[in-house]
Amino acid sequence: MPVNPPQLEAPLAVPGFRVGTASCGVKSPDLKGKRQDLALIVADVPCHSAGVFTQNRFRAACVNAAESTITRHGEQIRAIIANSGNANAGVGDMERVWSQGLIDSAAEAAGVDAEWVLSASTGVIGTPFPLDRIAAGMGEAAASLTADGWQAAANAIRTTDTFAKWASATVSILGSDYTITGIAKGSGMIHPNMATLLAFVATDAPLNRDQLQPMLVRAANRSFNCISVDGDTSTNDTLCLLSSGIGLGGTSLTDTALFEQALTELCMDLAQMIVRDGEGVSKFVTIRVIGAASVEEARRVGRTIAVSPLVKTAFAGSDANWGRILCAAGNSGIAFDPAAIGLMADGVVMLEQGNLHPDYCDADGMAVFARDEFTITLDLAMGEAEAEVWTGDFTHDYITINAEYRT
Amino acid sequence: MPVNPPQLEAPLAVPGFRVGTASCGVKSPDLKGKRQDLALIVADVPCHSAGVFTQNRFRAACVNAAESTITRHGEQIRAIIANSGNANAGVGDMERVWSQGLIDSAAEAAGVDAEWVLSASTGVIGTPFPLDRIAAGMGEAAASLTADGWQAAANAIRTTDTFAKWASATVSILGSDYTITGIAKGSGMIHPNMATLLAFVATDAPLNRDQLQPMLVRAANRSFNCISVDGDTSTNDTLCLLSSGIGLGGTSLTDTALFEQALTELCMDLAQMIVRDGEGVSKFVTIRVIGAASVEEARRVGRTIAVSPLVKTAFAGSDANWGRILCAAGNSGIAFDPAAIGLMADGVVMLEQGNLHPDYCDADGMAVFARDEFTITLDLAMGEAEAEVWTGDFTHDYITINAEYRT
Repeated sequence: MPVNPPQLEAPLAVPGFRVGTASCGVKSPDLKGKRQDLALIVADVPCHSAGVFTQNRFRAACVNAAESTITRHGEQIRAIIANSGNANAGVGDMERVWSQGLIDSAAEAAGVDAEWVLSASTGVIGTPFPLDRIAAGMGEAAASLTADGWQAAANAIRTTDTFAKWASATVSILGSDYTITGIAKGSGMIHPNMATLLAFVATDAPLNRDQLQPMLVRAANRSFNCISVDGDTSTNDTLCLLSSGIGLGGTSLTDTALFEQALTELCMDLAQMIVRDGEGVSKFVTIRVIGAASVEEARRVGRTIAVSPLVKTAFAGSDANWGRILCAAGNSGIAFDPAAIGLMADGVVMLEQGNLHPDYCDADGMAVFARDEFTITLDLAMGEAEAEVWTGDFTHDYITINAEYRT
Repeated sequence: MPVNPPQLEAPLAVPGFRVGTASCGVKSPDLKGKRQDLALIVADVPCHSAGVFTQNRFRAACVNAAESTITRHGEQIRAIIANSGNANAGVGDMERVWSQGLIDSAAEAAGVDAEWVLSASTGVIGTPFPLDRIAAGMGEAAASLTADGWQAAANAIRTTDTFAKWASATVSILGSDYTITGIAKGSGMIHPNMATLLAFVATDAPLNRDQLQPMLVRAANRSFNCISVDGDTSTNDTLCLLSSGIGLGGTSLTDTALFEQALTELCMDLAQMIVRDGEGVSKFVTIRVIGAASVEEARRVGRTIAVSPLVKTAFAGSDANWGRILCAAGNSGIAFDPAAIGLMADGVVMLEQGNLHPDYCDADGMAVFARDEFTITLDLAMGEAEAEVWTGDFTHDYITINAEYRT
């Protein structure tokens, strides 16, 4: 059960984009017709683009292909093809062949050059990729292309996600309204080290590749790179951003601040949804690290806390065993003075300048840890920088999902 | 339930050492008389010594004190005092006061100078240290000092350990027989980053501090630093080695190779016992990384695999989901060529030169993963170096132990 999943309004269509889906039985032929597992995003015009990709050494071939395509043809992307049910990863030389086959099949169905198509796959690792079944469903995806297809696509890219994740925003810049819509999937193997999941974001704001790429990196650093479900970075994590604006006749915006803010908030929304729907997660916990010497250090401490199994099991047990939080922070590799730090959970102060707060009692801490959402604030007492990381707990359900089913 | 715990013979007495224990009710007064929770090791002569300590930024005061004492008085150590039930960590300024109180109380009971006493504490973090109850039991510990007290001490330092861990060896050097006996405790918060636990090793082999320290570091790197239960390095990890040999009238050995080998094997035995008895562990898995460019890189890859929750839950589920092993290896930060690697589980080859082995079938992999002990071998195909890491699985019991009880 996800933790307080948001009640989402329908995603907004983005001028220049149509989206279709198909049911191919990717994971197993008997799932064909039962659930959608292929999403095709087609741009009517060449799009400027940006991408952030997994840093895992075992990158799936589709990730290398997408990065290469964005590097070479980042100003004329025409489609994204994404499937769930099979990651096309860890299967050796055939990976590249199957990845190219997926791209070729999508390009043909969309009527665009294969050089302009990005692909992404998610699902089981190490199982031969059922290209035939997917190619057979490509016509269905193309036939269903519609401007309102984002919600269906958000559903199609799910693996163990219990709800489909999307977000839309409109941003008004110099009198023009622009739309941003993004979809994402997460669930397991979620840990920040670049994109950490599949997420596709489209906008009609006229922004060029040189503007989009640094904005996307910064937005990812403040959103998808601030979440952790289980500390594992996947082989296939991909975040892509396409803009149809210039192809639709727009001129590159010169002031990008409002757009970047909207993009960052949208990515934060999607990222937090992923934590809320993390495998087995029963609590949504914000780790806020303040008083750090730099944002990077604050984030590193926050991430080390967020990934500690002992911290996460304490969350699961509603046990205010905050010594584990200190211990995890101490493992972050960041130098700070334990005698100066502060710690609180929501409004309850546990430590002040390294000492137990005189008013703290266990019952107060336990009351906070019993909540299904709370914030841990750790003050490193070194500087002014801060960062937030969002994480879930480690529950019996996590073990059940990952030990008893092959995901 | 531990995984195939060894049938241990009684530990050997070490000339020059006596060991006593007491029941103080450290964790809770009502445990007094019910279980031993204080161990006092007294050397009849000044000992040369060596120590390896946690790298966690939140070091308990006793760890800093022990390191400082070994640095200043490492050739005349006379006692080690260790308690379970309370780590005396994360409690602020009082930590140093309580740590010194523990040392002073032990020194008085042992009749030695407090400057020559090492202390170690293990148990709950962030709870005031019950120095009064411990000091009240110190006489009991001193009264019970005996050359055969090692097994009782191994019991007294347990926290959630289900069995007491000790190992003894005799090593014959130039016609003289020397004894090495070590005790250890582990269970949770076990991850290599120096000592990772409490372990005390005593010998009568005449070796001086300058010989002991580098040997202990190397032995720790090949033993305690090669295990992982849950990726958390504790605030209190301490490994100490005392030698009574010179004080007993011996002359420093010039050839230390045989001793180092015996010490390393003894530390490996203790380290593997700790994994077998890791919290909730139901399988004992050896991660062997071969073909690495250096031992350090092999160990780093092995440790990254050993700590991955997705790998460990696959172990728990007896699921040969080896893609997760590749994924974890890819997160290690070590550069290798995925197209060249090999992977096997016991004798079953999964990958050869980056490709699925033609004979591999899932049933063969599942048969290996169903065993309660097996070895994963990953060939990085880069060089000749190799390393082994020992780890357990992530089970429902781990969650239960850590979420439902405060440890």
